[in-house]
Amino acid sequence: MDFGYSAKTREWMKRVGDFIDNRIIPASEKFEEQLVKGPDFRNWVQPEIMEQLKAEAKAEGLWNMFLPDNEYGAGLTNLQYAPLAELMGRERHAPEVFNCNAPDTGNMELLWKYGSEEQKEQWLKPLLAGDIRSVFFMTEPGVASSDATNMAATCIVEGDEVVLNGCKWWSSNVGHPNARIGIFMGVSDPLGEDRHRRHSMVLVPLDTPGVKIERMLPVFNEYHEPEGHGEVTFNNVRLPVSNIIAGPGRGFEIAQGRLGPGRIHHCMRTIGVAEKALELMCRRGLERSAFRDSLARLGGNPDKIANARTDIEMARLLTLKAAWMMDTVGNKAAMSEISQIKVVAPNVALRILDEAIQIHGGMGVSNDTELAYLYGAIRTLRLADGPDEVHRSLIARLELKKYR
Amino acid sequence: MDFGYSAKTREWMKRVGDFIDNRIIPASEKFEEQLVKGPDFRNWVQPEIMEQLKAEAKAEGLWNMFLPDNEYGAGLTNLQYAPLAELMGRERHAPEVFNCNAPDTGNMELLWKYGSEEQKEQWLKPLLAGDIRSVFFMTEPGVASSDATNMAATCIVEGDEVVLNGCKWWSSNVGHPNARIGIFMGVSDPLGEDRHRRHSMVLVPLDTPGVKIERMLPVFNEYHEPEGHGEVTFNNVRLPVSNIIAGPGRGFEIAQGRLGPGRIHHCMRTIGVAEKALELMCRRGLERSAFRDSLARLGGNPDKIANARTDIEMARLLTLKAAWMMDTVGNKAAMSEISQIKVVAPNVALRILDEAIQIHGGMGVSNDTELAYLYGAIRTLRLADGPDEVHRSLIARLELKKYR
Amino acid sequence: MDFGYSAKTREWMKRVGDFIDNRIIPASEKFEEQLVKGPDFRNWVQPEIMEQLKAEAKAEGLWNMFLPDNEYGAGLTNLQYAPLAELMGRERHAPEVFNCNAPDTGNMELLWKYGSEEQKEQWLKPLLAGDIRSVFFMTEPGVASSDATNMAATCIVEGDEVVLNGCKWWSSNVGHPNARIGIFMGVSDPLGEDRHRRHSMVLVPLDTPGVKIERMLPVFNEYHEPEGHGEVTFNNVRLPVSNIIAGPGRGFEIAQGRLGPGRIHHCMRTIGVAEKALELMCRRGLERSAFRDSLARLGGNPDKIANARTDIEMARLLTLKAAWMMDTVGNKAAMSEISQIKVVAPNVALRILDEAIQIHGGMGVSNDTELAYLYGAIRTLRLADGPDEVHRSLIARLELKKYR
Amino acid sequence: MDFGYSAKTREWMKRVGDFIDNRIIPASEKFEEQLVKGPDFRNWVQPEIMEQLKAEAKAEGLWNMFLPDNEYGAGLTNLQYAPLAELMGRERHAPEVFNCNAPDTGNMELLWKYGSEEQKEQWLKPLLAGDIRSVFFMTEPGVASSDATNMAATCIVEGDEVVLNGCKWWSSNVGHPNARIGIFMGVSDPLGEDRHRRHSMVLVPLDTPGVKIERMLPVFNEYHEPEGHGEVTFNNVRLPVSNIIAGPGRGFEIAQGRLGPGRIHHCMRTIGVAEKALELMCRRGLERSAFRDSLARLGGNPDKIANARTDIEMARLLTLKAAWMMDTVGNKAAMSEISQIKVVAPNVALRILDEAIQIHGGMGVSNDTELAYLYGAIRTLRLADGPDEVHRSLIARLELKKYR
Repeated sequence: MDFGYSAKTREWMKRVGDFIDNRIIPASEKFEEQLVKGPDFRNWVQPEIMEQLKAEAKAEGLWNMFLPDNEYGAGLTNLQYAPLAELMGRERHAPEVFNCNAPDTGNMELLWKYGSEEQKEQWLKPLLAGDIRSVFFMTEPGVASSDATNMAATCIVEGDEVVLNGCKWWSSNVGHPNARIGIFMGVSDPLGEDRHRRHSMVLVPLDTPGVKIERMLPVFNEYHEPEGHGEVTFNNVRLPVSNIIAGPGRGFEIAQGRLGPGRIHHCMRTIGVAEKALELMCRRGLERSAFRDSLARLGGNPDKIANARTDIEMARLLTLKAAWMMDTVGNKAAMSEISQIKVVAPNVALRILDEAIQIHGGMGVSNDTELAYLYGAIRTLRLADGPDEVHRSLIARLELKKYR
Repeated sequence: MDFGYSAKTREWMKRVGDFIDNRIIPASEKFEEQLVKGPDFRNWVQPEIMEQLKAEAKAEGLWNMFLPDNEYGAGLTNLQYAPLAELMGRERHAPEVFNCNAPDTGNMELLWKYGSEEQKEQWLKPLLAGDIRSVFFMTEPGVASSDATNMAATCIVEGDEVVLNGCKWWSSNVGHPNARIGIFMGVSDPLGEDRHRRHSMVLVPLDTPGVKIERMLPVFNEYHEPEGHGEVTFNNVRLPVSNIIAGPGRGFEIAQGRLGPGRIHHCMRTIGVAEKALELMCRRGLERSAFRDSLARLGGNPDKIANARTDIEMARLLTLKAAWMMDTVGNKAAMSEISQIKVVAPNVALRILDEAIQIHGGMGVSNDTELAYLYGAIRTLRLADGPDEVHRSLIARLELKKYR
Repeated sequence: MDFGYSAKTREWMKRVGDFIDNRIIPASEKFEEQLVKGPDFRNWVQPEIMEQLKAEAKAEGLWNMFLPDNEYGAGLTNLQYAPLAELMGRERHAPEVFNCNAPDTGNMELLWKYGSEEQKEQWLKPLLAGDIRSVFFMTEPGVASSDATNMAATCIVEGDEVVLNGCKWWSSNVGHPNARIGIFMGVSDPLGEDRHRRHSMVLVPLDTPGVKIERMLPVFNEYHEPEGHGEVTFNNVRLPVSNIIAGPGRGFEIAQGRLGPGRIHHCMRTIGVAEKALELMCRRGLERSAFRDSLARLGGNPDKIANARTDIEMARLLTLKAAWMMDTVGNKAAMSEISQIKVVAPNVALRILDEAIQIHGGMGVSNDTELAYLYGAIRTLRLADGPDEVHRSLIARLELKKYR
Repeated sequence: MDFGYSAKTREWMKRVGDFIDNRIIPASEKFEEQLVKGPDFRNWVQPEIMEQLKAEAKAEGLWNMFLPDNEYGAGLTNLQYAPLAELMGRERHAPEVFNCNAPDTGNMELLWKYGSEEQKEQWLKPLLAGDIRSVFFMTEPGVASSDATNMAATCIVEGDEVVLNGCKWWSSNVGHPNARIGIFMGVSDPLGEDRHRRHSMVLVPLDTPGVKIERMLPVFNEYHEPEGHGEVTFNNVRLPVSNIIAGPGRGFEIAQGRLGPGRIHHCMRTIGVAEKALELMCRRGLERSAFRDSLARLGGNPDKIANARTDIEMARLLTLKAAWMMDTVGNKAAMSEISQIKVVAPNVALRILDEAIQIHGGMGVSNDTELAYLYGAIRTLRLADGPDEVHRSLIARLELKKYR
């Protein structure tokens, strides 16, 4: 047992950290200026500065660090990637700069694991190159998506075509000017005996006739431009059967495989957000004073700081342990730990963000700090990839299994 | 002791409730259409539908119900007004329709109590008529405003003029097209021996030279158009000394008097928000199902519903008791109870809003329900009119006094 | 609506309060001395001082105040009785002194409502006189008693006899030297079609052959001498059918009736405990100092005091409202409110007791204050008369009913 | 970074675990029988079975595992010892069997680090042999001991004697029939300029004239026989100056050194208690059913199980990390982490114990399970070795230091 980061990890941390400090943070104002904001995604643009930074990061080899593959990615383990993701989590634009942002990372990993050679050639390569971006079509507005058997969208094979129908929402990134491809999950065999073989995943080029972005959904009134979260309808969208990933009926299996690393990446970034919130809380607390003491030392505020530090330490350790288990015993054996940290990380970060808001007074709810923005962004993580309730239920089920 | 609403109260509740159900709710879409949104307050307009509804409410005598004065207001006690405010709290636009919205209510009450005959004639009357709207300039960006002795803005008497300098923010309503007048609190006697006689309140017509709205502040990215929350600078703003309310040095005293009813009005409305959130939570929970049961009956959700109901009941009782004390023994004797409910009401509402968001899934963080909007709006109440921390500290001090 | 205690209530409060202050508190040391402690209930005695105080209280008419009947009791409503129960809750021995202690109050109310004239003559009268004490045999060790349909003990009618078999535990008061009679609830018609007509209640004189006290159960290692909580077996206990209360099959109906006031009495007393804990917390906090300030003003302690005061206010108001509803619209219509306060009161009191323990340091967990004792005693109330979980579930069910 | 226990650790875990399962657990009934209980410590005895088990454990080399010294102890690091302490924490009598119980471990470590050769010969050796037991005299009844500068007891050097006066309480183990020696901390130089050089530690044989055990203090009415927690007075207790450990004025320094490992040992054992509580909760939840489902799957119970599992994982990781830091960078650099886990571990265990009690119904508060006993025992850990409040304050101070 060893709680220290390895020399290799520390070196990567230094490189990523330096790049963020020296290139990304100084550019953040420029990024904001080059952005077009508002609900109308047709006006959205990719800020030029982003493409410049991507090119620089790529040139320095700070690229695709999420993918544990020596050829396609940086060849880092989940455990090695974790602290890099944490660093990226602190800066809103950092993940895309390093080509390490959701939902692309999950989609790339999926294609890497389950895609055919052709699919990899056509879609994985440009994604890995950062030339295009992608979408994952999962959640539906009409049903409780926490129970996957509720899914209503269909992808029915007719001859050598697969026909997609239905409505998806919270399709993140679909508004991005570079978004070209989506992975659609739907029911392919509604009456299939095996409930876990009824679904399939299909690659959908976004310009296919019948695919329509209806609108963008805000998160606490933020549209997360230029990525956005879309509501998208599929109306008799026809594609060759070769667009089905790994063949019909494997949707569930693939979804399980996709969600493990995706969840843990979110958690890692969320720890970074929590650290940032604590830093802002401390700095503000030391800067301002009232009733003859600094806010940081006043009344119950030290308790909040202490609890924040403690909760972050524990959440980070649990994330790292889950990552280590994924590396050593596999995603399935790490299922409980992944669900545990999936519940803990956003809840911890939200509590600290809320307390940081409180110590900032009115400034905290405005846009003069990132706190309110981050609160909304992290709040969605208690819902995305399975709400807290579903994860707690899974953890309990696995726990009770020990006694039978 | 009697926990039933009086016949008179019940009659008022029916009139206000019917007006909201039959006129305001059906008009809410129109209101949204007529609104101009975005950070640039110069474009903001008062929706025509609002002026129509105001005229109707006024015609029916559903007007100025907050003011316990038979001539100027409806002559209701705080206790009688409470359930009306709760009803208004459920609908975003209702308070203005009835001329019962912050910060005007507090400002009107202030002028009614402390204003000279001239000041009443010039400003209170048009406010009571709903012809103009008003602002309260209190919080400052540069200091921890929770400690009033930190206040830096000045209003110094020079001959027969008073000269205002400084910067205020979170000046709610300052963006409203009808806003004409503000009440400015500042230091008039910086070296005065009595710390509670150093401040004064001054009436500032918003078109006075030197008054400048710098920008509008968003709340979780919402600008609350067309009212807004402004950052306003005062640069050698010169006014006649007769604009000082109740004479120099009475700022603190007046502030104390203003905040009692203002806080309790917010609490009443907040209870209405909490009820609405619980209703949305129940309805959604019954509508959707997963894992072979309705969400409302699944896992820990019934506990959340039960806790929400219980917390609302208790918060309402405490609000009503505080109102009753203000009516019977006065604001000063009700100080602990007012602070208690000032802490409890927004915290209860936020917890229920958060749980209602959770049961709505992704829809909950979007604008498809009012939940995210309300979360932001209520979150500010843990800061406005004194943050939780200051109120808890006051409650404790009053409690400990019993033992000396 | 009126939040003030009536003149009559205030007069009773003064009489009860004075009696407690002047007679009961000064005698508490004597009470402890006259007690025999330990698990062996056969040695337990009724302290002489208790009988003296009972005689005095009875002589002054401070007697049976719980019973809303002018002939048998003091003729007070639940609302009038509430603050008296709160006062009694502050002193461990007070309820018995006034003949207002559980489980006798519930049993007397039950007999008063459902007993035959003969049953009243034989058992209600000596109970009301304070000459004997009683037991309620409900909970069973072998099943989850939170679900009443799990009950396994039987009371089968055979000819003109009813035969009792089974095991009950947490039979409070069964160790009391004056305990003479118990009310036994069991299954009388196991296959009856109507699930709510399968149970009966039977009066069991404790000296009936076949009734055996197996042992006393401690609560956090306290035996609550000389009352105790017994495990009692019933082995072919034969009694005349006339001992069945209100006839066979009415057990459920009677249980419902019994539990309403019983629960609310517990809540009232629990508010008294919470007040006492807050008082001890404040006094200790003012007495001791560390790091150059009194503990009461240090760090997060004022927040704890403020929250305690606030929670007590709300819990008291909810208790009083539930009592008022029982008086005005009946126990059935007050069902949700009764369950609400049944959950809230012990949880609030436990939190305050825990914080009072903390501020006392090591002294808090010892017997040098009553805090640890009270913590155990109140902890049982989250289980007795339905665990929190069952009450929350009921509140949620009633809430959801509104939307169907 | 590596989250797996080393092969060596796993081997020790197996040996300790097997010994507990095969020897200690089967003997626990015998232990209870051989115990004399009650407040009168003069009757207390050391159960014979304990001495037998100690001899067996010693013979097998399962002895003094806490001491990171190859000659005197087992030569394990804190990280290696941690999971062994966790295993011991599950069984009340296990720590003493392995000579690894508080307060002896802390006292032995203290003597090992700071004792003279003579002191080691006379006291450390018999302690390491398990022949005698020891006491630590720190906390005082008359002051808030959380602030060490409050300490009132004195140990004044007069010639070649040191004279002890004062009163200590919560002197654990002082009732043990084998207790022979205590370490007394007191003020030796009341006016010394350096506040951290005013105190000294003195070895006090318990039979020295002037040392008097006044009484034993119960913890939630348990006396923890035969160890007990005593109140002890020191009345002109005269000892040779050679009994001062490491010379006068080093009390503070030694106390700091003593508390690090002692605190972490408590945390490790507490994790074991939490695991045991979760196990009992799950087993009971699966055994009992109500409302047509097992309690473990009913309502919010799965959430409680999931949260318990998650909290234990995080608390264990933080404990292990703190232990690893003590081994690698030293106790001082691990100060924040030690305080963090000192707060977390008992709070996590108490919450799980409380929920386990709840699912057991009435049984949970009785002595039919260990839950109520353990609740009391762990409750003291939020006070002992510094209350939560002091540790949170320290964590915050260290956190804020980063920004200066």
